[in-house]
Amino acid sequence: MRITVLAGGIGAARFLRGLLAAAPEATITVIGNTADDITLSGLRVCPDLDSVMYTLGGGSNEEQGWGRAGESFRIRDELAAYGAGPSWFALGDLDFATHILRSQLLAEGRPLSEVTRILCDRWQPGIRLLPMSDDRVETQVKIDSGLIHFQEWWVRLHAAVPAEAIIPVGADAAAPGPGVLEAIAEADFVLFPPSNPVVSIGPILAVPGIRAAVEAKTVVGVSGIIGGAPVRGMADACLTAIGVETTAAAVAAHYGAGLIDGWLIDEQDKAAVEKALDDDPALFGIAVRALPLYMRDVPSSAAIAQAAIDLAKELTP
Amino acid sequence: MRITVLAGGIGAARFLRGLLAAAPEATITVIGNTADDITLSGLRVCPDLDSVMYTLGGGSNEEQGWGRAGESFRIRDELAAYGAGPSWFALGDLDFATHILRSQLLAEGRPLSEVTRILCDRWQPGIRLLPMSDDRVETQVKIDSGLIHFQEWWVRLHAAVPAEAIIPVGADAAAPGPGVLEAIAEADFVLFPPSNPVVSIGPILAVPGIRAAVEAKTVVGVSGIIGGAPVRGMADACLTAIGVETTAAAVAAHYGAGLIDGWLIDEQDKAAVEKALDDDPALFGIAVRALPLYMRDVPSSAAIAQAAIDLAKELTP
Repeated sequence: MRITVLAGGIGAARFLRGLLAAAPEATITVIGNTADDITLSGLRVCPDLDSVMYTLGGGSNEEQGWGRAGESFRIRDELAAYGAGPSWFALGDLDFATHILRSQLLAEGRPLSEVTRILCDRWQPGIRLLPMSDDRVETQVKIDSGLIHFQEWWVRLHAAVPAEAIIPVGADAAAPGPGVLEAIAEADFVLFPPSNPVVSIGPILAVPGIRAAVEAKTVVGVSGIIGGAPVRGMADACLTAIGVETTAAAVAAHYGAGLIDGWLIDEQDKAAVEKALDDDPALFGIAVRALPLYMRDVPSSAAIAQAAIDLAKELTP
Repeated sequence: MRITVLAGGIGAARFLRGLLAAAPEATITVIGNTADDITLSGLRVCPDLDSVMYTLGGGSNEEQGWGRAGESFRIRDELAAYGAGPSWFALGDLDFATHILRSQLLAEGRPLSEVTRILCDRWQPGIRLLPMSDDRVETQVKIDSGLIHFQEWWVRLHAAVPAEAIIPVGADAAAPGPGVLEAIAEADFVLFPPSNPVVSIGPILAVPGIRAAVEAKTVVGVSGIIGGAPVRGMADACLTAIGVETTAAAVAAHYGAGLIDGWLIDEQDKAAVEKALDDDPALFGIAVRALPLYMRDVPSSAAIAQAAIDLAKELTP
């Protein structure tokens, strides 16, 4: 079984851990969002790729949900003593090592896809991790005072300043990374984890060629919205910016029946989604299944992944 | 009183600490060797500048003699887990922060002199630290198998492989850093700490314009050779490479009476140097003073610095 997954950061990483438990025999390719990558202290940081790599490689901080286990912050404190470094983005010492090596390899002229493979050689995440593109794509958020990097809006401003628009700058000129289109074409089906539809899945689909490749496959998505609120993160602020309601049904309609074939929702959203299925033409043709969607641990994540696999198999001609 | 000092790393840093204690009212400018700078893990490391900055700023590891106090090595271990990073050059986590910030500032297009000023803003070393040049100069060592970076010969090979030549590559095309020639011209006198004459003082003097500026001043040097051996480091291997004996007299003759006016030697070398003064024309005109030259602590370093000041004043017309 070949499964290809479009992935943001932590939500995707937890879903993938469940997927690996549910389908240990599957060949899983993960196409990672790189549009929230950022250069900090002169080093290239890829939060989504690293969240997947660390989590599946057994190196993540489970309590915190991001970053490395056993992390320390001596470099951050040193940079602060120099009056330097972003105070709003805390990179740990262990994490810094990853960014130092990545930046060194990129400066040597290696594409991000090759660098990611080198980093994954250590972590052995059990999946093949492909950046969506080797070209630079950067999500920028339009706020009252102008355009800012997504991370600045998300982390520094806690997404509390209203976004007028969210733009994956550079996506239209980016090429899919090596192996990306092939991984989609060769997959038995494609899964969307409960990642942010606007700033995680959105930029991947915005790279020319990827959306069309995904549309040609059976796709099952997992709602990241439960009971009208994002399970984690501030996806509601992103959805509002693009005029989409923060409901499981509205996110499914945003993807649309042309893209997704199946949609997993939480049981508490069942009545609302069933009503929407009758009313909203954008949902016609999407098979919906309701189940408990909170990923509390590996077994609960594996149950969700198994449901996604089952629905994808059911929907595959 | 204006004193300008040509400086290598640790020996110079300890001498400078003595000089600050002996002459707290003096305006001291330090022209630092940058020819043993190296790029490691993609980051620019300036060992001599940092040794001076950390030591005078109170941040050095006193027992070890180099690096930062309270240092840890988590990043080195992480890089090793990735199969990366030079195993032969141990950069600590706190030290890494300096190199990260320096590299970021250099990448922004700032010259090393400005970057050094920014780093020193934190450390307040009590002296003005000027890189000898903003241009890249790199000491390379010719060994049997070819040219290698000085640090590779010094640190990785422990200078145990015979050097056929030691070459400050790029020095002939380098320009003195901003303020360097002025600091020499405006000084009441110039001091050479007991730094390595071949790879610390030598590259500074090899930058066009610096030697002539120094020759025009009263110069007092401190021998780094005591009893036929370097006090620390492996200066003998460097001296052998350029055909100079490892004696206090031979190093003075290497600098020559055209460059230095006074020379401080250890008491145990007094008889040998006095004999050489009668025999070697290169020493004619150099005023020699013998005193205890081991820099055990700040008072012993201050006594040496005071003797250098006294001799320089005596020799200044």
